Amino acid sequence: MKASKLKEFEPIFYPCSIAVAGASADTGKMGTKWVNGLLAAGFKGEIYPVNPMGGEISGLKIYPNLKAIPKPVDLVIVCIPRQFVLNLLDDCAASGVKAVHFFTAGFRETGDPEWIRVEEEMAAKARQGNFRIIGPNCIGIYCPEQRMPYGPSSLLGAAGTVGFISQSGGHAGKLLEIGLGRGIHFSKVISMGNGSDLDSLDFLEYLAVDPKTAIIGAYLEGARDARHLFQAIKNVSPAKPIVVWKGGRTEPGAEAAASHTGALTASASLWSAALKQAGAIEVQGLEELADTMLLLQQLGRIRGNNVGIVCGLTDGGGGESVLAGDACAAFGLNVPPFSEKTKAHLTALLGQVGSILRNPLDISQGYGNTRIVEQAMELVSREPHLDLIIVYENVDILLRFLSAEITEIMNNIFIGFHRRQSKPIVVVLPRGSREKERLEIEDKFSREGIPVYPTIERAARAIAHVTRYYSRLHKGSTEKSRQ
Amino acid sequence: MKASKLKEFEPIFYPCSIAVAGASADTGKMGTKWVNGLLAAGFKGEIYPVNPMGGEISGLKIYPNLKAIPKPVDLVIVCIPRQFVLNLLDDCAASGVKAVHFFTAGFRETGDPEWIRVEEEMAAKARQGNFRIIGPNCIGIYCPEQRMPYGPSSLLGAAGTVGFISQSGGHAGKLLEIGLGRGIHFSKVISMGNGSDLDSLDFLEYLAVDPKTAIIGAYLEGARDARHLFQAIKNVSPAKPIVVWKGGRTEPGAEAAASHTGALTASASLWSAALKQAGAIEVQGLEELADTMLLLQQLGRIRGNNVGIVCGLTDGGGGESVLAGDACAAFGLNVPPFSEKTKAHLTALLGQVGSILRNPLDISQGYGNTRIVEQAMELVSREPHLDLIIVYENVDILLRFLSAEITEIMNNIFIGFHRRQSKPIVVVLPRGSREKERLEIEDKFSREGIPVYPTIERAARAIAHVTRYYSRLHKGSTEKSRQ
Repeated sequence: MKASKLKEFEPIFYPCSIAVAGASADTGKMGTKWVNGLLAAGFKGEIYPVNPMGGEISGLKIYPNLKAIPKPVDLVIVCIPRQFVLNLLDDCAASGVKAVHFFTAGFRETGDPEWIRVEEEMAAKARQGNFRIIGPNCIGIYCPEQRMPYGPSSLLGAAGTVGFISQSGGHAGKLLEIGLGRGIHFSKVISMGNGSDLDSLDFLEYLAVDPKTAIIGAYLEGARDARHLFQAIKNVSPAKPIVVWKGGRTEPGAEAAASHTGALTASASLWSAALKQAGAIEVQGLEELADTMLLLQQLGRIRGNNVGIVCGLTDGGGGESVLAGDACAAFGLNVPPFSEKTKAHLTALLGQVGSILRNPLDISQGYGNTRIVEQAMELVSREPHLDLIIVYENVDILLRFLSAEITEIMNNIFIGFHRRQSKPIVVVLPRGSREKERLEIEDKFSREGIPVYPTIERAARAIAHVTRYYSRLHKGSTEKSRQ
Repeated sequence: MKASKLKEFEPIFYPCSIAVAGASADTGKMGTKWVNGLLAAGFKGEIYPVNPMGGEISGLKIYPNLKAIPKPVDLVIVCIPRQFVLNLLDDCAASGVKAVHFFTAGFRETGDPEWIRVEEEMAAKARQGNFRIIGPNCIGIYCPEQRMPYGPSSLLGAAGTVGFISQSGGHAGKLLEIGLGRGIHFSKVISMGNGSDLDSLDFLEYLAVDPKTAIIGAYLEGARDARHLFQAIKNVSPAKPIVVWKGGRTEPGAEAAASHTGALTASASLWSAALKQAGAIEVQGLEELADTMLLLQQLGRIRGNNVGIVCGLTDGGGGESVLAGDACAAFGLNVPPFSEKTKAHLTALLGQVGSILRNPLDISQGYGNTRIVEQAMELVSREPHLDLIIVYENVDILLRFLSAEITEIMNNIFIGFHRRQSKPIVVVLPRGSREKERLEIEDKFSREGIPVYPTIERAARAIAHVTRYYSRLHKGSTEKSRQ
């Protein structure tokens, strides 16, 4: 099963050759942009532009049609007007292509019976011709390992472990852009559009067995076969965490979804119940999705939801500790007290005045003394009942009241703790007035594998999602072993 | 009442002279930093460093004590160890100072009965000596008009209309940093710490009559006299919107608050009910507070909560429109359909394929055609039942698929609509991979008075807060006029 599934999808994610129908010598054309994107990204296979007008793109010959291409074609990317697609599919069958991706839109999502029928005929032709369809109405496949960039562009990040299936090409593209900024690295991203043939279920089954994918995310507006989809999620979620964002939860959202991919959206509460039952992590927006996948990628399994919080790297940690305590508790995390021994050590280290020597720990009184930061981190990370440490760092305030040098020493201390893996660390870097410096520090942490969040609320929400997933998983496996 | 209140607080917000107790020739000392901060910010009055050791700071003579200062002192900023503060207060009384601000901490917030008693004695001395106390345990007063920077630094932004009262110096400082980044401009910011004498109620009564303050924000952990505070909020909120963030809503948060400012926090739900009753806008975090104040500052009154949304400035607007519809509906905003006439115009403009010609409007099919963007904006802004337009702009995707020139033309179109005041505009610029360019565009919109948000959820939440406030206000005034 596993080997055959991987084999079946090989021409889609690792095509040896791609033909682009609708590329032309006119650089403004979408097909031309696609060819240039593949070239710029250094696509590992052959590229064949196709257009009856002929000509040349960046030194590549344009073939008049698919049948004129002298070598086998694995994948065809279609950027031609919708009225020509059925003829093209006959050519695909005749040429023995393995998969066809339709960027072309204007089918089921229009609600027009004539074009709904055409979409159905496309799927029928694929079955007869023994090839698969991706889309229509989508951006298709992103696979950095094969150097397949995202859509008609050269967008290509480093290869990673996160797989993503999306009914919105825009959200998939935006998630890739967010990933470039925040250090989320993808194995595969699939914009599947209307899913007339290959559907979310098919791509989920593939990512489930793909050895390069460890975490799966999905943006879904509807599902053709919801029962099987939820069953597949249930089968996969114990091995690979699955994060699902259901779009069209409200009336205006659902109406937009109907026009977008022709999805018939079921009630949001039914989806939520089914996703929970299937062991998926449900999120409700793009940032929440990215936040959760980032945590899964960077930290993997987290033992439990007892968090230690370190605030007040410079002055002003009192309010930070109230905020951090409130935000973590609001998302169901535990902020347990420190042991008496640790409290005594902290009092010796920081004194009674001006700091808050409980969890969340406010080390304001250290006021830039990096030795105190290090010792406080040491004490907190030795607390055996804590599963994770959140460091709350206001970069602009550090730079205003202390200096870039002291800030850097502190950051290296946190990285040192992370490298020693004493406890997983999450860093919160709230936005303020020094975005340039803040982003540089975020990059530094990200490269070290430390997940960074712009607010304590978003960090707490992601930690809650991930720790609940692992706790259910652990409970499930304990129950199984008892049977 | 108004004139006497303004007069009473004049030495606090517009002091002619400030003495800094605890400044010294040692530049590392907090008092010294305060003096240098005032100098660097160009404080409009006289500055008198005070220290028994004497000496000089940046050319200013250090006086051995308050009584040695030859001219009247309005405000004393105290940065000396807590054991010396009672003696200092006797000097303050003898010298006829008007107000004393204690940066010095270690009183009620320690929970130590001895130091609680000292804090009470400080307040008693102030009453006897006929001066007021700010703090202890706080950063004190920020007033850009008088060129009083924030705390021991030169942090000073442009003067604006937002007044802010905070029981956390850290949050007040961070809000100022956020304001610098996002274009929120303050009239006064008060970090009041333990509020042993002047309390949130006093500062609220001042901001209520301060002609420079149009919007009031507050971060509160507790209140000495909650009944009077809520009554004052009720009196003020019809004239000036009041945004309140209550810290210590949960057990860990409340425990931190007790250690922070010694606040006894009442239950969160009691606070919420009382704030609602008093007509305040309640928020639950620093970003939510900033988001709401930014909207109030930039747009003032918004007529209602019927929003029109424009997405898909380049490709990929389908998912954006689902997300935007869901987010607005989740926060209780209306996303009403366009009129039939407008729909017909939009179909003529964009065609049936690849765009979503309903609200939220996806203009993907315009694909960078700025004429289409302008005409679509024109059509949406003419819809009489819409109160506000949200523009959803993915800067990184625009720059990747179109160009900086086209992006700039589009942004100038939005600014043109804002200038013509046809409908208020809110712009969402989600973070991705091009933060530098995104922040430049945010700055450009901010300078034009257009509020910018990093996510549609945060924009929708702020719009919901502000439109609910104005709708209650309108209802209240209608009911009154009926009586």
